Amino acid sequence: MAAAYLSPTPTFFPSTTTTTSTFRTLLHFKPTLSPKHSFKTLCSRRPQYIPNHIPNPNYIRIFDTTLRDGEQSPGATMTTKEKLDIARQLAKLGVDIIEAGFPASSEADLEAVRLIAQEVGNNVVGEHEHDYVPVICGLARCNKNDIDKAWEAVKYARFPRIHTFIATSEIHMKYKLKMSKEEVVDKARSMVAYARSLGCQDVEFSPEDAGRSDREFLYEILGEVIKAGATTLNIPDTVGYNWPREFGQLIADIKANTPGIENVIVSTHCQNDLGLSTANTLEGAYNGARQLEVTINGIGERAGNASLEEVVMTLKCKGELLGGLHTGINTKHIVMASKMVEEYSGLLVQPHKAIVGANAFAHESGIHQDGMLKNRSTYEIMSPEDIGLFRSNEAGLTLGKLSGRHALKAKLLELGYDIDGSELNDLFWRFKSVAEMKKVITDDDLIALVSDEVFQPKVIWKFGDVQVTCGTLGLSTATVKLIDVDGEEHVSCSTGTGPVDAAYKAVDLIVKAPVKLLEYSMSAVTGGIDAIASTRVVIAAENDHTTTHASGEKITRTYSGTGASMDIVISSVRAYVGAINKMLGLKKQQEDVRVEEAVKVNN
Amino acid sequence: MAAAYLSPTPTFFPSTTTTTSTFRTLLHFKPTLSPKHSFKTLCSRRPQYIPNHIPNPNYIRIFDTTLRDGEQSPGATMTTKEKLDIARQLAKLGVDIIEAGFPASSEADLEAVRLIAQEVGNNVVGEHEHDYVPVICGLARCNKNDIDKAWEAVKYARFPRIHTFIATSEIHMKYKLKMSKEEVVDKARSMVAYARSLGCQDVEFSPEDAGRSDREFLYEILGEVIKAGATTLNIPDTVGYNWPREFGQLIADIKANTPGIENVIVSTHCQNDLGLSTANTLEGAYNGARQLEVTINGIGERAGNASLEEVVMTLKCKGELLGGLHTGINTKHIVMASKMVEEYSGLLVQPHKAIVGANAFAHESGIHQDGMLKNRSTYEIMSPEDIGLFRSNEAGLTLGKLSGRHALKAKLLELGYDIDGSELNDLFWRFKSVAEMKKVITDDDLIALVSDEVFQPKVIWKFGDVQVTCGTLGLSTATVKLIDVDGEEHVSCSTGTGPVDAAYKAVDLIVKAPVKLLEYSMSAVTGGIDAIASTRVVIAAENDHTTTHASGEKITRTYSGTGASMDIVISSVRAYVGAINKMLGLKKQQEDVRVEEAVKVNN
Repeated sequence: MAAAYLSPTPTFFPSTTTTTSTFRTLLHFKPTLSPKHSFKTLCSRRPQYIPNHIPNPNYIRIFDTTLRDGEQSPGATMTTKEKLDIARQLAKLGVDIIEAGFPASSEADLEAVRLIAQEVGNNVVGEHEHDYVPVICGLARCNKNDIDKAWEAVKYARFPRIHTFIATSEIHMKYKLKMSKEEVVDKARSMVAYARSLGCQDVEFSPEDAGRSDREFLYEILGEVIKAGATTLNIPDTVGYNWPREFGQLIADIKANTPGIENVIVSTHCQNDLGLSTANTLEGAYNGARQLEVTINGIGERAGNASLEEVVMTLKCKGELLGGLHTGINTKHIVMASKMVEEYSGLLVQPHKAIVGANAFAHESGIHQDGMLKNRSTYEIMSPEDIGLFRSNEAGLTLGKLSGRHALKAKLLELGYDIDGSELNDLFWRFKSVAEMKKVITDDDLIALVSDEVFQPKVIWKFGDVQVTCGTLGLSTATVKLIDVDGEEHVSCSTGTGPVDAAYKAVDLIVKAPVKLLEYSMSAVTGGIDAIASTRVVIAAENDHTTTHASGEKITRTYSGTGASMDIVISSVRAYVGAINKMLGLKKQQEDVRVEEAVKVNN
Repeated sequence: MAAAYLSPTPTFFPSTTTTTSTFRTLLHFKPTLSPKHSFKTLCSRRPQYIPNHIPNPNYIRIFDTTLRDGEQSPGATMTTKEKLDIARQLAKLGVDIIEAGFPASSEADLEAVRLIAQEVGNNVVGEHEHDYVPVICGLARCNKNDIDKAWEAVKYARFPRIHTFIATSEIHMKYKLKMSKEEVVDKARSMVAYARSLGCQDVEFSPEDAGRSDREFLYEILGEVIKAGATTLNIPDTVGYNWPREFGQLIADIKANTPGIENVIVSTHCQNDLGLSTANTLEGAYNGARQLEVTINGIGERAGNASLEEVVMTLKCKGELLGGLHTGINTKHIVMASKMVEEYSGLLVQPHKAIVGANAFAHESGIHQDGMLKNRSTYEIMSPEDIGLFRSNEAGLTLGKLSGRHALKAKLLELGYDIDGSELNDLFWRFKSVAEMKKVITDDDLIALVSDEVFQPKVIWKFGDVQVTCGTLGLSTATVKLIDVDGEEHVSCSTGTGPVDAAYKAVDLIVKAPVKLLEYSMSAVTGGIDAIASTRVVIAAENDHTTTHASGEKITRTYSGTGASMDIVISSVRAYVGAINKMLGLKKQQEDVRVEEAVKVNN
């Protein structure tokens, strides 16, 4: 580890100057470079590449755990491709550390983390001040197997990190771990040292349920793991039980009483059970934490985590008041990250969600336009453009049925989507078919089509046709045509209690993979009766593979799928087939990994 | 006004004893009694009825503005019946002050506030310690017309309150009001005095955008309105721009510097634009506010308000740490209030919403049951039962197709619905028709049916039948039968871009009221392919009536409707007809009021 990581004192200093530049003080310890960038250009842009550089003490590292804590919430299972897409978007956002998964939980998880480490963990992102490579982190419980698996996955990144944790509250030690305090300290110390011994120079340690742990014990265990080589200490309010002053005091106490704390970064991880996660996180920063763990849209187990957008935008708006605290996040990519995570996790964002909810900037929708035009800041504290929200009527380009591929491509770029090749081609034909029926294609229509064509898992079963008859007379009947990977067409029909039930039963007759439908929802993406409907389903395989949760328990994986169409029956079938493809794809990937392992062993 | 209201010093006292009783210290100044309760029984239960009683200084009044601030958010328009239902539920919850609406905004609003004042404002709620009558409050801008209208509506309540406001921030005074500071102070002072002169003894005043107002000016205007007779001073962070320490300091400063502040109650009203409303509200209480303005589910304009459930449950869990602060809320009614508001406002709650989100207690769903059973409190800081959440498998009674009316009634009571008469009858027949198709009727199925049968506006057009053909071949065709108030059947057919488009066009051909579809969404209420689908739509009448927003601007009313069925086309048509009935009903009500007024004038 570079001296730069250890020498500065990352305690809280009131800012003496106004810091508006977003230069990044994240400490990277391996100054290896991508082929495209010379050492010199990087040096001139990123202070952390300069030996012994002392970082700005008010710089806040953003640690995103959407792919780990978020992904393990009910229904939020993502495929490897989806995780990679999100990781790329997080890098675009400028997230300092990406927690990419929990490699020991399943082979598929390990594989996804490895791919992210290899690709996203080695690409220099952005131009000028934003140039950086994100740290890729993997979670591990305090045992050798978990730590080995985590290292196996993250070691390909230029800046790999292992994040290990063990519970330190009385109640968790007694009922979950069934270990004494001494045993817990010993485990933590030895496992942090073990992670370092593998060659991982960046090790984060979390005392789980710190919010309810005994203070003196916390100081002791944290001091021990620092001696063992931990570089970041993360303080989780695991059950979301703290209120802001209390959590701020916890951070302040830890900073004041833990031996060796001046050599490491203190981090927060706040659950949202009482709706206080954002405030708790900010209080943590105010009291000296310099890494904040968050998720996009605030997703996560139960009531979720502190949301990246709320924490980052508060620091952007109020950083001065918090003593000059600032992040390196490029906020213009927030909306796209939010939409992508909503899409892939299947966890909807409520209309009145702060920053990214549909109503958050509802003044824009024409209702208050008059008042707003007098002076925007009468009711608006940030502009929609700050977070990358561009409304249809503000964009220059309008698409209709005569628009060509070039216009579509230009519009997509304007919306933040960089789509090419066959994806663009497929999208273009979908666009044309919709444009035949609708006079004007709005931005929201396009986003729904992108979601249906691009944000999809690998095709195993391709949707062909569907025909349905239904109504209050009963006897709903559906006929479905699907196409398999060899191009063969399969047709089946079924009755059901309604059109969707009938169509899904017809799909089941073709696919023959026992599936349980857990959730089903639909929304129109724009106003007007000829809107595109977007359907979302969550399914689980019957008697199928489980994964290991961070708490050590086995959980059943669930899969979401989305589909868009102007016909709700068609969008419903598309979503269902999408979810089935996701499930079959992950299953296949796991089988492939197993075959590979078997081959390795045999050689 | 009773001396009791004025004499105590409601400043912040650290609690010297542990206060667990929920006795209510809300100050009511008219000790009139409902016929059912003698003065003696009330006296023995409710200290505020005892002359010169000094209330507990740590008692927090909960002021709910779901029906005012919440109802004016996009799509959340409610009918009078819906508002009455919610007001009754708020009284059950034990809300101290119900802000029932903004009477000057439209005749329908005034009428709804008056009905709530007459009924909910005169009923003694609950048994023993919860016995009380809620204060009914109406909003008014600082002008005589608004105040007259507000008084006209609330004066029927036993404890009426007028809440008047004017902006005090530089930016609002300059761009919105176009008034000088002196003019603003003069207006505020004279209008508070005017409200008192009408006979209203309880007047609340809010300096709008206080969070961005000049401190000295705030002290001045607040001191003036106290002299003029204001009894509660509400401090709104109108644009949600404060962070907790900042807002807490604002409340502390106001308490320290405003002349006469010791004679009034200080209140908070925090918008959620940065996701900090709950924390800001709590910091306000910590610094001496003794009334907190909140909404159910945190609904409201843009990112909404502080949510009642988060604020109340935090005070319940952490009240000790906040110096013994406590509310009089009966938390067991939270879930029902949340569901009712979600239903009537059309504003969905995200799965990871704190306290009331579907995942908030997801441990219960079997995923972590093993770990949870070891010891509930390892991951749970409150129990689902605390907020009135009873899971299907925990309830004793299971309904099937052989269940009778008595069993249905018992189950509904268990779920918190007290339904009788023709509503119960209609519900029973819907229940039977679903039970024919599903083996087991879950609690969620029942709730969806209640929502479809009971949470509905007055029937103007009754849904009869629908028959649909659709699919990828195009040419979706729907035939719809509706029944008018005279029992006459109307049948029409139409084609469309999908089954819903076709069916809605067929409905339009019958109803002949030009309507714009703004939003459309659907969800399955339980897992499994034979689930009931619940559809929600939001419509606006074309060229139709507007209402006045609190900011003074005219806004277009929008109407939501819900429908449930196992067939998504049927549920879609039910929802659409429901929304149309809501729109036509409100229109009719306004016409009736106009006719009444005309008759009055002519007499």
